[in-house]
Amino acid sequence: MIFLGGTDALPDIGDIRAAAERLAGIAVRTPLLESERLNDRAGARVFLKCEMFQPVGAFKVRGAWNLIAQIPDIDIGAGVVAYSSGNHAQAVAWAARRRGTNATIVMPKDAPDVKVEITRALGAEVVLYDRNSEDREAISADMSDRTGAVIVPPYDHTAVIAGQGAVGLEAMQQMEEIGAVPDTFLVPCSGGGLIAGCAIAVKDAAPHVNVLAAEPEHFDDTARSLAAGKRLANSPGSASICDALLVPTPGKLTFEIMRRTLSGGVAVTEDDVKAAVRAAYLDARVVVEPGGAVGLAAVLSGKLAGSAKNICVVMSGGNIDRKLFADILTG
Amino acid sequence: MIFLGGTDALPDIGDIRAAAERLAGIAVRTPLLESERLNDRAGARVFLKCEMFQPVGAFKVRGAWNLIAQIPDIDIGAGVVAYSSGNHAQAVAWAARRRGTNATIVMPKDAPDVKVEITRALGAEVVLYDRNSEDREAISADMSDRTGAVIVPPYDHTAVIAGQGAVGLEAMQQMEEIGAVPDTFLVPCSGGGLIAGCAIAVKDAAPHVNVLAAEPEHFDDTARSLAAGKRLANSPGSASICDALLVPTPGKLTFEIMRRTLSGGVAVTEDDVKAAVRAAYLDARVVVEPGGAVGLAAVLSGKLAGSAKNICVVMSGGNIDRKLFADILTG
Repeated sequence: MIFLGGTDALPDIGDIRAAAERLAGIAVRTPLLESERLNDRAGARVFLKCEMFQPVGAFKVRGAWNLIAQIPDIDIGAGVVAYSSGNHAQAVAWAARRRGTNATIVMPKDAPDVKVEITRALGAEVVLYDRNSEDREAISADMSDRTGAVIVPPYDHTAVIAGQGAVGLEAMQQMEEIGAVPDTFLVPCSGGGLIAGCAIAVKDAAPHVNVLAAEPEHFDDTARSLAAGKRLANSPGSASICDALLVPTPGKLTFEIMRRTLSGGVAVTEDDVKAAVRAAYLDARVVVEPGGAVGLAAVLSGKLAGSAKNICVVMSGGNIDRKLFADILTG
Repeated sequence: MIFLGGTDALPDIGDIRAAAERLAGIAVRTPLLESERLNDRAGARVFLKCEMFQPVGAFKVRGAWNLIAQIPDIDIGAGVVAYSSGNHAQAVAWAARRRGTNATIVMPKDAPDVKVEITRALGAEVVLYDRNSEDREAISADMSDRTGAVIVPPYDHTAVIAGQGAVGLEAMQQMEEIGAVPDTFLVPCSGGGLIAGCAIAVKDAAPHVNVLAAEPEHFDDTARSLAAGKRLANSPGSASICDALLVPTPGKLTFEIMRRTLSGGVAVTEDDVKAAVRAAYLDARVVVEPGGAVGLAAVLSGKLAGSAKNICVVMSGGNIDRKLFADILTG
């Protein structure tokens, strides 16, 4: 069961405002941090919207909660189901527990043990599947049909996009509170839920702002899709340090929004990403995961075209293995 | 020249409020972060006042600015002088540059090159002395007498204490904004400027709160001094990973304030500190230096007596060598 016909309707600013109200007292109103040293490095003012401070360490709790909170009481007892091995899995588990219901997460058999354990520790049931012979979406749909559990899609759903959009709504409010006007708004992009929601909120508040997708090289499907005017896919077989950003093609709903609102995309290299993770540590004293740092990487690598002077950058998560983080710091 | 007769007068809440106004738009109103996972670990609600997000990465800019901002225009041209090789040095250099004057920092000849470089990069002149044969306070006083430069003491000065007290004022305001009432307020303590200022603000807002000094083991001079009712010193020859907290005895002014306001002190081990730095990374995604983490270490090590349920913890700085940070994460 896909709830609320959520894969057809484009959310609007009213949906995002309603999501922000639902999220009050549930998600963190994350700080917008500015670092002088980072500004010096960038040659511009850079404002970091710090979503790593959310429960489970990523913005994903916003969309998950916004959907799960709207499931009617009569249906909630059947629980929710999601397919993910990353931040979305944890977010759905977290939001379901918060709502007082059970979550089932469909994960590949070869997912790292630590990810399975973290998801179980949040109270979810984990169902393992074989990624070579089984289809996780079909498994989830089948489970939903049998049990009545509501599917929580990772990005291509009205309520999920609206929930993630609260990031953009808050950031624009916070910019206004400090009297700064952004010219550029950079968001890490994979399936596109976060940037689509943010773009609606940002464009509503300030239509002149350039909203840009930041992506890892070889995973720049959004930038290429925007340029082509249709959804394109990444070549299979590529790898990236940005494990949160490996969706091969933009979502249907999210692409429709991005097509209308985005100014384009910026692709960054693995070294750019590592340098951004290191700079976030050195200059801003925050922990950001590779996929969460691609926006900052675009700024610091000089790959932003034009003359951006006030840049709002979403840092979408902080779930990075400590061995990898240590290697990046000292590398 | 010691400015404003600042080593005699105890600051009051009015001085701290005035300092907070002077700091508006200069220092960061640092966020108060709460992490569910840290709460679970602690068995209490823990609110982190994150001073690592200040310019130069530590609370020290507050006191330095509060003093330097009050120097009359007619005197400011002669500059300022300070003796420190750590966060205070950088803070004074930063604040002097911000005021448009020059800073001279007296540092030992054997200070790490990186600290000398960072201080020079902030526009300060560094004067090196021999710690075996020379007295840094005498050098500073002599320089002040010759040039008219104003001495900015690291902690034992009314304006410095009042500036650091803005940390406590803000934290109590932020607790009120989220509807939480602290029972315990933990602050890293060395010379005592930060905790003395905070204690005045905290006790003014909520007299029932226990304000506690957190110190590294072998450097628990404040706890012992409070218990004895007089200023005691640490034994020479001890070492600690907490390089920001090595002052051997409480200040005169600061001790007078602490004697009246503190409930006591908690000493933590090197392992407690490392565990706290690691937990701040894992659960709160922030970078804290060892000396800045002693308050959190007191909470997580279970060394807090009594049944604290709402604990406000000041994390005072984030200047940690990246090799050491990497070792702590993976150790």
